[in-house]
Amino acid sequence: MFSTVLVANRGEIALRVVRACREAGVRSVVAYSTADRESAAVRCADASVHIGPPTARSSYLSIPAIIEAARITGAEAIHPGYGFLSEDPDFAEVCATHGITFIGPSPQVMQRLGDKAEARAAMAEAGLPVLPGSSGALTSAGEAACLAAEIGYPVILKAVAGGGGRGMRVVRDPADLASAYTETRAHARAVFGDERVYLEKFVDDARHIEVQILCDLYGRAVHLGERDCSVQRRHQKLIEEAPAPALDEGTRAAMCDAALRGALAVGYTGAGTFEFVVSPAQDFHLMEVNCRLQVEHPVTEMTTGIDLVQEQLRIAAGEPLSLRQEDVAVRGSAIECRVNAEDPERDFRPTPGTLTEFVPPGGPFVRVDTHAYPGWRVGPDYDSLVAKVVVWAPDREQARARADRALAEFRVDGAGVRTTIPFLRQMLAHPAFAAAAHTTGLVAAAAPATHDTPTTPHEKAATTPCPDTSPPDPAPDASVVA
Amino acid sequence: MFSTVLVANRGEIALRVVRACREAGVRSVVAYSTADRESAAVRCADASVHIGPPTARSSYLSIPAIIEAARITGAEAIHPGYGFLSEDPDFAEVCATHGITFIGPSPQVMQRLGDKAEARAAMAEAGLPVLPGSSGALTSAGEAACLAAEIGYPVILKAVAGGGGRGMRVVRDPADLASAYTETRAHARAVFGDERVYLEKFVDDARHIEVQILCDLYGRAVHLGERDCSVQRRHQKLIEEAPAPALDEGTRAAMCDAALRGALAVGYTGAGTFEFVVSPAQDFHLMEVNCRLQVEHPVTEMTTGIDLVQEQLRIAAGEPLSLRQEDVAVRGSAIECRVNAEDPERDFRPTPGTLTEFVPPGGPFVRVDTHAYPGWRVGPDYDSLVAKVVVWAPDREQARARADRALAEFRVDGAGVRTTIPFLRQMLAHPAFAAAAHTTGLVAAAAPATHDTPTTPHEKAATTPCPDTSPPDPAPDASVVA
Repeated sequence: MFSTVLVANRGEIALRVVRACREAGVRSVVAYSTADRESAAVRCADASVHIGPPTARSSYLSIPAIIEAARITGAEAIHPGYGFLSEDPDFAEVCATHGITFIGPSPQVMQRLGDKAEARAAMAEAGLPVLPGSSGALTSAGEAACLAAEIGYPVILKAVAGGGGRGMRVVRDPADLASAYTETRAHARAVFGDERVYLEKFVDDARHIEVQILCDLYGRAVHLGERDCSVQRRHQKLIEEAPAPALDEGTRAAMCDAALRGALAVGYTGAGTFEFVVSPAQDFHLMEVNCRLQVEHPVTEMTTGIDLVQEQLRIAAGEPLSLRQEDVAVRGSAIECRVNAEDPERDFRPTPGTLTEFVPPGGPFVRVDTHAYPGWRVGPDYDSLVAKVVVWAPDREQARARADRALAEFRVDGAGVRTTIPFLRQMLAHPAFAAAAHTTGLVAAAAPATHDTPTTPHEKAATTPCPDTSPPDPAPDASVVA
Repeated sequence: MFSTVLVANRGEIALRVVRACREAGVRSVVAYSTADRESAAVRCADASVHIGPPTARSSYLSIPAIIEAARITGAEAIHPGYGFLSEDPDFAEVCATHGITFIGPSPQVMQRLGDKAEARAAMAEAGLPVLPGSSGALTSAGEAACLAAEIGYPVILKAVAGGGGRGMRVVRDPADLASAYTETRAHARAVFGDERVYLEKFVDDARHIEVQILCDLYGRAVHLGERDCSVQRRHQKLIEEAPAPALDEGTRAAMCDAALRGALAVGYTGAGTFEFVVSPAQDFHLMEVNCRLQVEHPVTEMTTGIDLVQEQLRIAAGEPLSLRQEDVAVRGSAIECRVNAEDPERDFRPTPGTLTEFVPPGGPFVRVDTHAYPGWRVGPDYDSLVAKVVVWAPDREQARARADRALAEFRVDGAGVRTTIPFLRQMLAHPAFAAAAHTTGLVAAAAPATHDTPTTPHEKAATTPCPDTSPPDPAPDASVVA
């Protein structure tokens, strides 16, 4: 096992990694920007290194600053968390050059799976069901039109370099395709610096279901079951749960098998997630593979009892997987609610401010992952996630009641600070969610007015406003990561 | 199910019950003293009723005040928590008279099991191994001497009306017995208003292991496995865990069977705990039966996934047990650490004060039960428990590491406030505890100086200083409950 690990991230996930290190007897060092000097991760880590000003480009995205932080603190490995550099093959490559272990898949695998078009091709080759679509980047509007006619509308145009739910547009009418193609390319060029787009069949009334896998360096892999992340607002996940409700046992098994097959086909190592779109008829198709820890990983931890970050550390340190598939038992039901510092009544506008009151929920089967505390300033520099409230119960209905109880007792206040807690409680109580009959359209249907009117600069810059499916994690600093 | 339940308690356990009620869809009303006006339980409950000044006798021990609180709020049932009126058969009787359901066993069962001598006799009759000793209260020093000679020294003298580890004295030398008898009686008369004492064999190097049971109103009973509560300071539990480490499987099964047999023999209903003393040779003998929820119930919840308070509510409401014994699976290992506002460096003197900083731990598999929050005043009126930090892990060694991690990140501060966190971490790291080779003598052996010098008025009033075994829970307001 490593003796020192550098945590190249911030917020709750930095603290999550610090906790895993401490429990594993590993010294943790947090690399932090000026804005995070007083963060809970810095307080809890064994050591910390200031790497630059708040701008992510000068700190959490600065490869030289992070490599130097690892060098001067003697870190043998770097945990990238999610967002920022976590899926950057160049960063993983530079780590290797410096003799530092990147805690994640190899640069080659990240490169291949990070290119959406190439990932689709590789997975189709491995026999995974992939949505009908272009075999790679489109070369013209004409090609897009031919293909769309062949596979049938609606279709979705996606930026090859996109992610985090950004750079997507659903097209339902052939008359709109040419202009949508031009606009999506222009948008992708502006936001991602890469104008390539590809096209896929778009599935209405879909669910977003993803499979968690763990693969060691020796070709051994297990899956840890699936998560349903269909409660989304503009492709951003809000509520996630495990196991996925209303999923046929046969489909569940087939999806988990597919994820393992895909992972082994490309030589995947570490923790990863295969994201699928599942139709009302329970047809499933792969959307993408995420080469990192997911924000919603705790629901899998709660149902399996397995600490995913400790598993990541062990795998990266070269330990063979100690888990066999038959050791992985899914027990009960877990729900995670992402509490953001946003005002649901003002179109989820971020509400930065200093927390004058912050009393997270507790008690039986409630887990809170947060970097916030009383006096913490929710700054404007990063994303607005302040806490993940995760609950477990023997069944989904009890978990839903427990999640509502936990959210109800959560006290957060501060001048100007609002949270999504009331909105999350509405979603938990929504008849479609209660009946597990919801799809990724739930939030848009429940709150169409707020859904269709992006007004915050952050959202404007990052998202093409379109009502549709498809998931990804929010990068912690979406506007900068883009 | 009830529509409204009155919570006749305070602190973390009042909040625990409020949480269970909310999750079960039951309206909760908290009865509170002036000192608890701003408590988290009052904040989180659906309603609250002021019942009197801080003195427990005028509030949490005032049967008329509590019955009136239930009446005016339309509560159909009362949950007594632990301590205070939770084991008072008179209170349960008055509840019945007023048509209010007391959430606990019947007054008759509580009466019988609350009298230590009678409980011993009833359990011996049911075939449970009871420590050799007097069949009831002793009538003279001479009788005590004869009996002690017959069963062999050391012996322990205990007040019939004692509890919470108070009113006990170990006698190792026959020459000390007569004076010990006289003194224990005098002490019992002064503290409990009842001078009767009984005598038992005292087991050196013992462990305290207890079995959790649930019995419905229809003669159906299950056990939820056992807990080891051997880390004690002056008979007060500090660290508890489930399952008990270093316990033979055969002994474990026999103890659980014995608890069920004892419960069925007396017509026990609700949640209860059978407390055993276990010798190094794994001989076990019953010490007492606790007719209420235990402070340490969360470790059982963490290993079984069963919400004990919700089970209490269902049983009291007349629902048959939905659990069968084969449904109860113990998974992994859980450890609870009681964090008290006491100064370990000054003989655990209580340190009341207002909390200026209070950031409880979180993250994977950590549960915190606390009524405290930033700005909460830890008052001098009640016991010094500020939080229970409970962790779960796949095995004991990982749970021990996780408990230490959680305690390390717990931030508590306030003018004059100290906590037992450093002491708890020392105990977790103690070689005997790490090896699960510890007995109830661990704390005394690890810190003999502090153990033998009772200096606080609270402790002086409540405990006869003697190095020995035997467990009970601290009553939240020990000096007054006594």
